[in-house]
Amino acid sequence: MEKRTELYRGKAKTVFTTDDPERLVLHFRNDTSAFDGEKVEQLERKGMINNKFNNFIMAKLEAAGIPTQIDKVLSDTDTLVKRLDMIPVECVVRNYAAGSLVRRLGVEEGQALSPATFELFLKNDALHDPMINESHAAAFGWATEAQLAKMKELTFKVNEVLSKLFADAGMLLVDFKLEFGVDADGTIVLGDEFSPDGCRLWDSETRKKLDKDRFRQGLGGVVEAYEEVAQRLGVEL
Amino acid sequence: MEKRTELYRGKAKTVFTTDDPERLVLHFRNDTSAFDGEKVEQLERKGMINNKFNNFIMAKLEAAGIPTQIDKVLSDTDTLVKRLDMIPVECVVRNYAAGSLVRRLGVEEGQALSPATFELFLKNDALHDPMINESHAAAFGWATEAQLAKMKELTFKVNEVLSKLFADAGMLLVDFKLEFGVDADGTIVLGDEFSPDGCRLWDSETRKKLDKDRFRQGLGGVVEAYEEVAQRLGVEL
Ligand SMILES: Nc1ncnc2c1ncn2[C@@H]1O[C@H](COP(=O)(O)OP(=O)(O)O)[C@@H](O)[C@H]1O
Ligand SMILES: Nc1ncnc2c1ncn2[C@@H]1O[C@H](COP(=O)(O)OP(=O)(O)O)[C@@H](O)[C@H]1O
Ligand SMILES: [Mg+2]
Ligand SMILES: [Mg+2]
Repeated sequence: MEKRTELYRGKAKTVFTTDDPERLVLHFRNDTSAFDGEKVEQLERKGMINNKFNNFIMAKLEAAGIPTQIDKVLSDTDTLVKRLDMIPVECVVRNYAAGSLVRRLGVEEGQALSPATFELFLKNDALHDPMINESHAAAFGWATEAQLAKMKELTFKVNEVLSKLFADAGMLLVDFKLEFGVDADGTIVLGDEFSPDGCRLWDSETRKKLDKDRFRQGLGGVVEAYEEVAQRLGVEL
Repeated sequence: MEKRTELYRGKAKTVFTTDDPERLVLHFRNDTSAFDGEKVEQLERKGMINNKFNNFIMAKLEAAGIPTQIDKVLSDTDTLVKRLDMIPVECVVRNYAAGSLVRRLGVEEGQALSPATFELFLKNDALHDPMINESHAAAFGWATEAQLAKMKELTFKVNEVLSKLFADAGMLLVDFKLEFGVDADGTIVLGDEFSPDGCRLWDSETRKKLDKDRFRQGLGGVVEAYEEVAQRLGVEL
């Protein structure tokens, strides 16, 4: 499968077309960004870790019946995926309060959320990924009601599967963001990536942060934390 | 019905207890505020206009089967209402894009929204009334799912009734905010006020603004615009 032209260079990955119009290559770079791209750094090994991490997680999700983009791993940093028509709406589930929720709603970090919350954000860096709801998506044509219902159902299923997976490895899945797309058949498929770049993970006992908040908050040991998460889960790096 | 102690002094109204523990007096002041209370002015006659306007509108809504707080008008600026346990979540319907929607989502002012959007905001000046969704209300105990479903249903019914009322008087109901509470029986009842302070109204032809945006944007003629709306609807001032 030949990598062809660069289709899109995002903040953390580059997307390439291939010979097959229904397949793309996701190339995971070392670029690490926060605050809608305002803070950017190169973190050695990060692209490789996230690529392997994402493949490990998506395999678990696929096994649990969640349709994912994955076709096959091509190299340490590259994966062949189904080409999706991406829906510009991010799905977020939170099991514990952190990040923007704490700032926006004035609640305490670390508070358990019961039931877990579900949020939609418009994927738009210039607008700082504003929170939206189903009615905005319908009015502006970002997603249909049926697509959003499916995305919500799948996101909660992902939460169930991964909360258990991380709990068994001594971690709390605090929150996470997913991006979905539509494949050639019109099926809603999980795209993009699941990695410590797009979720929060805390050690269950000490609540030590093991995710991109280490980068956002300048705590250091970012890649080391990602490697620790991978190692605890049994992801081979 | 004797006004007793001041229970709460809000940004635009003062609430008094009465002899009857199930009744309160809403006293409409001339204070006009915007930007979460940052800009405040006294606008002569505004309290009287909004009190009469609100009574006129709530009578129409009650007639359409929407439970409202109104017991009876006490004076130009005072109304006796059912004491409600207010739900700290504001309901907003938008028929046309304006205000925070335009700023947050980068859409064009005046764009017709189809279907109309429905938003929830946490009533909290210190946090600048952040947008929330049903899952936040459930997780933090602000309202139950059943209450929110009822509030949404009633808000859309209000939109139906009032869009027609204003259209017949040559105006577009651009958007509006409602506050609901729970009465002694547990029924969801429309509280607070419906007035040009909490909605947007444009002349159907010229799109001239006839609501609090005249105050927010320093356009002048604020009270004159409120009086014009009242006169077009046939509200006796
Ligand atoms: N399977 C897929 N098909 C098409 N596009 C995808 C797929 N998976 C992810 N994408 C898109 O490719 C880009 C991945 O690069 P990334 O660096 O995350 O970009 P961004 O800065 O836009 O978040 C994202 O815009 C994402 O929506
Ligand atoms: N029927 C009611 N019973 C109890 N409280 C009410 C009722 N109607 C309105 N309120 C509350 O009384 C206050 C009205 O005053 P207002 O100036 O609008 O206050 P605020 O600055 O909090 O918006 C609001 O906080 C509103 O929620
Ligand atoms: Mg991305
Ligand atoms: Mg008010």
